[in-house]
Amino acid sequence: MEAKLHELKTRLLEIDDLSRAGAVLNWDQSTYMPPGGAEARARQMSTLGRLAHEKFTDPAIGKLLDDLRAYGESLPYESDDASLIRVTRREYERSTQIPSTLVAELSNHASTTYQAWTEARPDNDFNRLRPMLEKTLDLSRQYAECFPGYEHIADPLIDFSDFGMKASSVRQVFADLRQALVPLVQAITSQEVVDDSCLKQFYPEDQQKAFGEMVIKRYGYDFNRGRQDKTHHPFETKLSLGDVRITTRFQDHDLGDGLFSTLHESGHAMYEQGVSPALEGTPLANGTSAGVHESQSRLWENVVGRSRGFWEHFYPQLQMTFPEQLGKVSLDTFYRAINKVQRSLIRVDADEVTYNLHVMIRFDLELQMLEGSLSIRDLPEAWQARYESDLGMAAPDDRNGVLQDVHWYGGIIGGVFQGYTLGNVMSGLFYSHALQAHPEIPAEIAQGEFSTLHAWMKNNIYQHGSKFTAPELLERVTGGPLRIEPYIQYLQGKYGEIYKL
Amino acid sequence: MEAKLHELKTRLLEIDDLSRAGAVLNWDQSTYMPPGGAEARARQMSTLGRLAHEKFTDPAIGKLLDDLRAYGESLPYESDDASLIRVTRREYERSTQIPSTLVAELSNHASTTYQAWTEARPDNDFNRLRPMLEKTLDLSRQYAECFPGYEHIADPLIDFSDFGMKASSVRQVFADLRQALVPLVQAITSQEVVDDSCLKQFYPEDQQKAFGEMVIKRYGYDFNRGRQDKTHHPFETKLSLGDVRITTRFQDHDLGDGLFSTLHESGHAMYEQGVSPALEGTPLANGTSAGVHESQSRLWENVVGRSRGFWEHFYPQLQMTFPEQLGKVSLDTFYRAINKVQRSLIRVDADEVTYNLHVMIRFDLELQMLEGSLSIRDLPEAWQARYESDLGMAAPDDRNGVLQDVHWYGGIIGGVFQGYTLGNVMSGLFYSHALQAHPEIPAEIAQGEFSTLHAWMKNNIYQHGSKFTAPELLERVTGGPLRIEPYIQYLQGKYGEIYKL
Repeated sequence: MEAKLHELKTRLLEIDDLSRAGAVLNWDQSTYMPPGGAEARARQMSTLGRLAHEKFTDPAIGKLLDDLRAYGESLPYESDDASLIRVTRREYERSTQIPSTLVAELSNHASTTYQAWTEARPDNDFNRLRPMLEKTLDLSRQYAECFPGYEHIADPLIDFSDFGMKASSVRQVFADLRQALVPLVQAITSQEVVDDSCLKQFYPEDQQKAFGEMVIKRYGYDFNRGRQDKTHHPFETKLSLGDVRITTRFQDHDLGDGLFSTLHESGHAMYEQGVSPALEGTPLANGTSAGVHESQSRLWENVVGRSRGFWEHFYPQLQMTFPEQLGKVSLDTFYRAINKVQRSLIRVDADEVTYNLHVMIRFDLELQMLEGSLSIRDLPEAWQARYESDLGMAAPDDRNGVLQDVHWYGGIIGGVFQGYTLGNVMSGLFYSHALQAHPEIPAEIAQGEFSTLHAWMKNNIYQHGSKFTAPELLERVTGGPLRIEPYIQYLQGKYGEIYKL
Repeated sequence: MEAKLHELKTRLLEIDDLSRAGAVLNWDQSTYMPPGGAEARARQMSTLGRLAHEKFTDPAIGKLLDDLRAYGESLPYESDDASLIRVTRREYERSTQIPSTLVAELSNHASTTYQAWTEARPDNDFNRLRPMLEKTLDLSRQYAECFPGYEHIADPLIDFSDFGMKASSVRQVFADLRQALVPLVQAITSQEVVDDSCLKQFYPEDQQKAFGEMVIKRYGYDFNRGRQDKTHHPFETKLSLGDVRITTRFQDHDLGDGLFSTLHESGHAMYEQGVSPALEGTPLANGTSAGVHESQSRLWENVVGRSRGFWEHFYPQLQMTFPEQLGKVSLDTFYRAINKVQRSLIRVDADEVTYNLHVMIRFDLELQMLEGSLSIRDLPEAWQARYESDLGMAAPDDRNGVLQDVHWYGGIIGGVFQGYTLGNVMSGLFYSHALQAHPEIPAEIAQGEFSTLHAWMKNNIYQHGSKFTAPELLERVTGGPLRIEPYIQYLQGKYGEIYKL
């Protein structure tokens, strides 16, 4: 068994090398690659993706997993080796259902579409992307069709990002959540709009960057094993457990955009940086689901980074960094500004309360596109109609509408957006359990001290990588399945106080 | 035949994708990778190199080449397809003689050694690198031993970079050159030392960078298909024909270091950018030899970039960029400063006249190490002794001695350095032929206009990639074999005038 396990790990390591090399090429494409590199880069990434997929779906891997099954089951469930055999088998079974040619075509298509999107979005030109997006939808359907027997065609795609969830279960969580959110949004938006003009002054980029990096160092993001660069759309990427990078963007006249993007991506990155080094080079060395991943980005961005205590500590430093802009702005005014709730058009700029409504729109549209009840041609109009009905406003153009998010233009359609809201829900749930274990955490945050919270997350979540599925992790950490109540209570408590509801 | 040719090209394209992906990882390692990424990166690059090597040495490629041989020979010698079949066969025969495991070990070892060098060099700690360098020498010998029947053990390594050359032929060129150079160096260095203090003032990095980039744009380096970043040791790298990057370094108190590095690397890059797009993804899409490559970097750095005419045009702009530093410095003083000839310690900082003496030292030491007559342990001492005897000076430490060049610490020992001097010789030879065809070139340079020279190089050299070997290219372009006379005449003419010899 030792020899077989060793062979499995050797093969997985080679596959990981190819995948991580692809991640380097993708990072470079998004950060520094000159335009002339686009065509070859798409092909190079596609080749790496295809080879990784071919090697992972090699029947020899299936044979090794068969041979190792009994051995794996004889080990403690949470041991590294048992988890490796179990999780690799699950991914192997899923991957062998997808033809290598489809994987390569998707990767190639995603890369060229992404490049086109970076140009079409500023030009507000959805039509230029339409044929590409039609192909994306077609490829996404083909992808889902590799897993027959689904209840809804989106289920296999949802399952890929959030194992154990499907369209119907997500719909249920979203319906419950909507029931609590809509009255909260109404109560808040019936009040006078908060003045956040203090955030819209001129903030030089270099100082924004320095302040954000200072904060995430304090959080525990390790710059010896990472770095931050600028991209159109912020993201986190793992090039190895020793090199987990984040990207952000800055706006001269919007302090919140760059800063909270940085905090958000640092949450993703601390998750990956916190995975046990023993899992490097295996399918276990990743966050376990989109939802759990997002729980960390939203925790560090919002639950921590937009809390009153956090700013009691950091606001004086921010004022010193930007004395002209903020010297005369009170903490209270600033705190209300960064937590301003308002119906708006852009998901990534949305506040904590309305954010999930944005996600629900995308989730529903994805389902409709995959079902075939909504064509790409009609997508911009459908987008506008949902914004009208759910948020009471329509975008002046597609740039601020259907073109705003990279996801459909750099990947597949389906199974992507639900993770954001599942993550929000989990951020509240995990935080409530961290507080039960360590009631001193809020006082520490107000001292700019995050090690207790970081350590709790690392011990309970990060170190395990994807040893446990999200439902298993929730069971281990919270003693039960996903519950929305702590998140709702968090929102009601925080915003009830701010808006005196 | 069409089908077989198509299959060959498809296979070569996949191999090229893997190799170029490796180049992206290497570029990233040298520019932006955080220290924590080093270990996994070495492994990732090694995996890519091994896979590319395995795929290139697949017997199926040999079979295709056999099947295509007669077809290739029936086509015009310089046609794309005939050249592809011919050159691929030559590289295939060479590569099949090297075991994949050795390729992987070398790549892995080179990557970790490089990382160690970036730390050991500032620490002046040769001993830390000694065991690694001993392994490098051992691996380099193993590499050479894959090609039995050599006259000198360095020959196979020289042949890899400069096909058609060997230790004895390089020694002959070097001996002839030395005979002309030594009296020139003596005549110059017996005079008063030129004052180059104007270059040693404080020059802010941003303005150095902007000026250098302005010049290479004028040269014809295409920033849509490239970019410049900072590294310890400047280099040029081709990530695809649409993405040919250069790196440089800047010193606050040495204007020449960054500027002439930029011009140098732009020459390498314009060569690669000028390769015919029809050759993309094949072994033909590269410069044909280290020597020819270096002829271009040295041409644009020295023959053009340190010429009087060049600075008649650009010096007023440089003065405007640095008015405090250069406003009162005459063109004549500046021109003498950038062409100051002086016995010195650092190869990359050496002037045109003494530069080749630095190369000869390294070349001879490489031969001795490979022969086994010089151990790594004795290398620093041997280095110092040769600098004493050839240049009349010894370095105060290893940092400015044996640790100065990356080559031995990031690759193999042997076959690397001769290309620099062969390139110098060729730069003079090619330039003399460009002038014969277009006597107006010097006048154009004095107008800051480089298109005639660039076009001549592109038509005669760049576009062909590696269709022709260096000896073939010399024959086509100059009507004969390598001759040192035009280069010697260039040096004697230029420096005879500056030093009134």
